[in-house]
Amino acid sequence: MSDLSHVLPPEDETLAKPARTIRDVARRAGVSIGTASKALNASGRLAADTRARVLLAAEEIEYRPNNLAQSLHRARSMTVGILSNDSFGRFTIPIVAALERRLFDDGIAVFMCNATDDPQREQRHVDQLLRKRVDGLVVTSRRADVRAEVVPAVRGLPVVYVFARIENPDALCLLPDDEGGAGLAVEHLVRLGRRRIAHITGPERFEAVRLREKGWRSALAAAGLAARDGDYRSGRWSEEWGREAARSLFMRRAQPPDALFRGNDQIARGALDALGEFGFAPPDDVAVVGFDNWDVMTAAARPPLTSVDMNLDALGSEAGASLLKMMAGRRLSGAKRLPCSLVVRDSCGAGLRNGIKKR
Amino acid sequence: MSDLSHVLPPEDETLAKPARTIRDVARRAGVSIGTASKALNASGRLAADTRARVLLAAEEIEYRPNNLAQSLHRARSMTVGILSNDSFGRFTIPIVAALERRLFDDGIAVFMCNATDDPQREQRHVDQLLRKRVDGLVVTSRRADVRAEVVPAVRGLPVVYVFARIENPDALCLLPDDEGGAGLAVEHLVRLGRRRIAHITGPERFEAVRLREKGWRSALAAAGLAARDGDYRSGRWSEEWGREAARSLFMRRAQPPDALFRGNDQIARGALDALGEFGFAPPDDVAVVGFDNWDVMTAAARPPLTSVDMNLDALGSEAGASLLKMMAGRRLSGAKRLPCSLVVRDSCGAGLRNGIKKR
Repeated sequence: MSDLSHVLPPEDETLAKPARTIRDVARRAGVSIGTASKALNASGRLAADTRARVLLAAEEIEYRPNNLAQSLHRARSMTVGILSNDSFGRFTIPIVAALERRLFDDGIAVFMCNATDDPQREQRHVDQLLRKRVDGLVVTSRRADVRAEVVPAVRGLPVVYVFARIENPDALCLLPDDEGGAGLAVEHLVRLGRRRIAHITGPERFEAVRLREKGWRSALAAAGLAARDGDYRSGRWSEEWGREAARSLFMRRAQPPDALFRGNDQIARGALDALGEFGFAPPDDVAVVGFDNWDVMTAAARPPLTSVDMNLDALGSEAGASLLKMMAGRRLSGAKRLPCSLVVRDSCGAGLRNGIKKR
Repeated sequence: MSDLSHVLPPEDETLAKPARTIRDVARRAGVSIGTASKALNASGRLAADTRARVLLAAEEIEYRPNNLAQSLHRARSMTVGILSNDSFGRFTIPIVAALERRLFDDGIAVFMCNATDDPQREQRHVDQLLRKRVDGLVVTSRRADVRAEVVPAVRGLPVVYVFARIENPDALCLLPDDEGGAGLAVEHLVRLGRRRIAHITGPERFEAVRLREKGWRSALAAAGLAARDGDYRSGRWSEEWGREAARSLFMRRAQPPDALFRGNDQIARGALDALGEFGFAPPDDVAVVGFDNWDVMTAAARPPLTSVDMNLDALGSEAGASLLKMMAGRRLSGAKRLPCSLVVRDSCGAGLRNGIKKR
């Protein structure tokens, strides 16, 4: 571990190239090391042509500053750690990708830590990140849910929770506005003339499920409509549950719903498949709207599925921007919910001109 | 950037705790700094009880070694960079998760770099990683395909390609055995008594498509069967293409296939849906096998889909293990293909005892 020869065979002379030092730059530019340092770090006063000469010399000899050495000076490692407990799944990935893009533009590299749901493993990850002297932490979660606080043992180290929430009001938590997103779906269906809008969704232990239900009820109330008995069903996040719930809603009732707002796209797709089986033709007979805007489901559904998009990209960018602000000394806190948007396709009947049946 | 106060407000005294130095450890243990260093780095000779005393002292004052300072000594940063060009998608994620797990156990943290398909962005990522003095690079790709070589400008820096291949025979490339995987699927169908096994697959520009076709043809030939005209169709990676191809295969032909081996699970699922529409009942009339073993598709398909699993976890672990070997000085090279496995569910008819129709 302590021996350079493990990494590079001794005969390998080419390491000399990337290991050029600031001394080499100074010599080539014909300036002092202090001047070269000023130019390379964009600090202190320096004539423009001197600065240009140094930068050119650095370029010519392919000088790469050693971040490790820099970090020790600056007390900044230009690294950030991302902790996920969902093995970087479908929701985390677009967030992390946008975050990484945002931070990369500021020269910051991202450590990816998959802590799964094991608190001990998570703590070991946090310890490892602290040993790497990360400048900040981002914590994501499986389904925008409440989770335990990450206590990094370094007070003042910026931590951003994204698609995750903790109870501490001093923490910054960035979340999608599930309630508002559900409202968008219902308002759209109401505008299209639908009056009996049922809501089939996932397990109630998820905060997102409870918030979407709330949004559904509020939007119905605002439109002067009521949620009828049996029009709300909570179950699983699966196509199978979508089919099952659609069957029980449509087969046994005299007055079936004319619209379904589903808790996610898999449930919505299952419902679409099942509806066809017993003679209902979406979107004419029943309009269907999903949640998540997951391309795999929305594109393959017949008709293509209208869905609420949580704008995970925007969440990731905002997390990156917030972390940069906190690293620059600003204090940010509170649970901040970013707007969802509705992506309209054919399953809600919006594409059909005057084709909406009023019952 | 050069000011510590950005990171920590000056009044924040608690930083003192994690920033304990080796000097503090030595003082508490009543040993010299050199002795403390030996004990903490597990180097040099030291009496067991002295070593224990130092480690205990380190524990008690919550001393955390500064990896940055260590790295400068050791010429090892204990970090590795992962470059992806698929925004860490469905295939890359399980690989990277397994890789990260493997390396974490050796105390190595992983930088995640999403280079998309932009060569300039990729180069900037590589440069950034070199400035961080990573000990190695892992490069992944969208679909186990040939890609451009990453030239890190540091000769001797270990690079592992996983789910990606470059033309240079000196490079280590870890790949799934697509040809063998296709063979498993066909052999299984043959064992179940199927004789006309069509292959519907994705775009031929993918090496995986060409290899799976080869595996399909070889396994047919080995079983004394022939690929009939029109039984091979290349198209898109989508459920829509799966439906389209199934329609054209089954509607116009006097003797339709009794089995379908599909290039991926989406194509297979589309086919399953379409077969039902014109009166074919899988698996009795037609057995269907997919590729990828993607749970979202295999579980929702009716009947649940038999599929070839590329064992991406194993690929990721192997990439981690190989990188560690290379970091320890071993030279590894060549394209290495790891075996796929077949996950049997109901869509191939294996679950039905004596239920297979022979035509």
